[in-house]
Amino acid sequence: MNIRQLIEKTRSYRRFDSKFEITTETLVSLVDLARLSASGANRQPLKYILVNSPELRKEVYPCLSWAGYLTTWEGPDPSERPTAYIIVLGDKEISDTFGVDHGIAAQSIMLGATEAGLGGCIIASVKKEKLRSLLEIPLQYDVLMVLALGKPVEKVVLENIQKNDVKYWRDEKQVHHVPKRPLEEIILRS
Amino acid sequence: MNIRQLIEKTRSYRRFDSKFEITTETLVSLVDLARLSASGANRQPLKYILVNSPELRKEVYPCLSWAGYLTTWEGPDPSERPTAYIIVLGDKEISDTFGVDHGIAAQSIMLGATEAGLGGCIIASVKKEKLRSLLEIPLQYDVLMVLALGKPVEKVVLENIQKNDVKYWRDEKQVHHVPKRPLEEIILRS
Repeated sequence: MNIRQLIEKTRSYRRFDSKFEITTETLVSLVDLARLSASGANRQPLKYILVNSPELRKEVYPCLSWAGYLTTWEGPDPSERPTAYIIVLGDKEISDTFGVDHGIAAQSIMLGATEAGLGGCIIASVKKEKLRSLLEIPLQYDVLMVLALGKPVEKVVLENIQKNDVKYWRDEKQVHHVPKRPLEEIILRS
Repeated sequence: MNIRQLIEKTRSYRRFDSKFEITTETLVSLVDLARLSASGANRQPLKYILVNSPELRKEVYPCLSWAGYLTTWEGPDPSERPTAYIIVLGDKEISDTFGVDHGIAAQSIMLGATEAGLGGCIIASVKKEKLRSLLEIPLQYDVLMVLALGKPVEKVVLENIQKNDVKYWRDEKQVHHVPKRPLEEIILRS
């Protein structure tokens, strides 16, 4: 896959095969992609917690909010939940601010996940203090986001935006539709 | 190249072949990679200005700060300056905050640049009001960062961090060395 194909395939997935286990080795290899990516002033303030045990992921799950626009959907059924999480932390002893580091890291990890036949969702809507308590995360670290990972079982399609409506939606076949703004709208000047 | 090779090759480059022109078509294809990447709540608030004309890039250049740790280096010589810039804006009419969108977008663009034989640097240290005035950017848009692009003419090597010193440095052959924290340091728990 070239980078365009990889990016096209790297959609936000929210339904997974809950029987498909992701090894710690795979998670470490994904974090390694983030480690090798750019960091503001090379400070590298990001730290990671890897979760893939059935017991712990069951407890991480209720700390996350899912798909705000799908108001009648409360999140994946137990049979379709993520089978791993990468929790991304900002080490405040290294830096007060994390700039775009966690966005860069998230994209590197999600692209690596796609290449590995996985998929997932970058979740910023996290019950951070609940997660901190669950994982005993010291106050030295800000909880920045959670990357939910698994083997996707849903189809996601991109389409052109209509009437400036950015809300993604699901059709009767449970295909997930994501409207994207066209290039003409986002390039102001060239 | 697989994603790991692509990420390893996607270093921050600050010296370029100033004779190598980057077409507008190439810049548009890079923005398209950002367009197809994830966006928080799918709001897609990022907008872009593309600069590749010799006249305009000459004026954009002094709006940027280069390589804070190389205190005796004021930035690339005229013969080694970037030949294109992608200015990333946040449209405040769409969203008050831009979350990790611009980090994700930057990484997609920089990976695409590497695949296209280019390279560059994500620059957050920007004289934003000077750039706003130069490019007549309406107040509706926050200037988030500038991606400087070109055909790299420098060698950048990664190495293990020593004594927690994150400062990159150049050796006598002008090879740029970037210390990276090891996996054991950044994975707190697995």
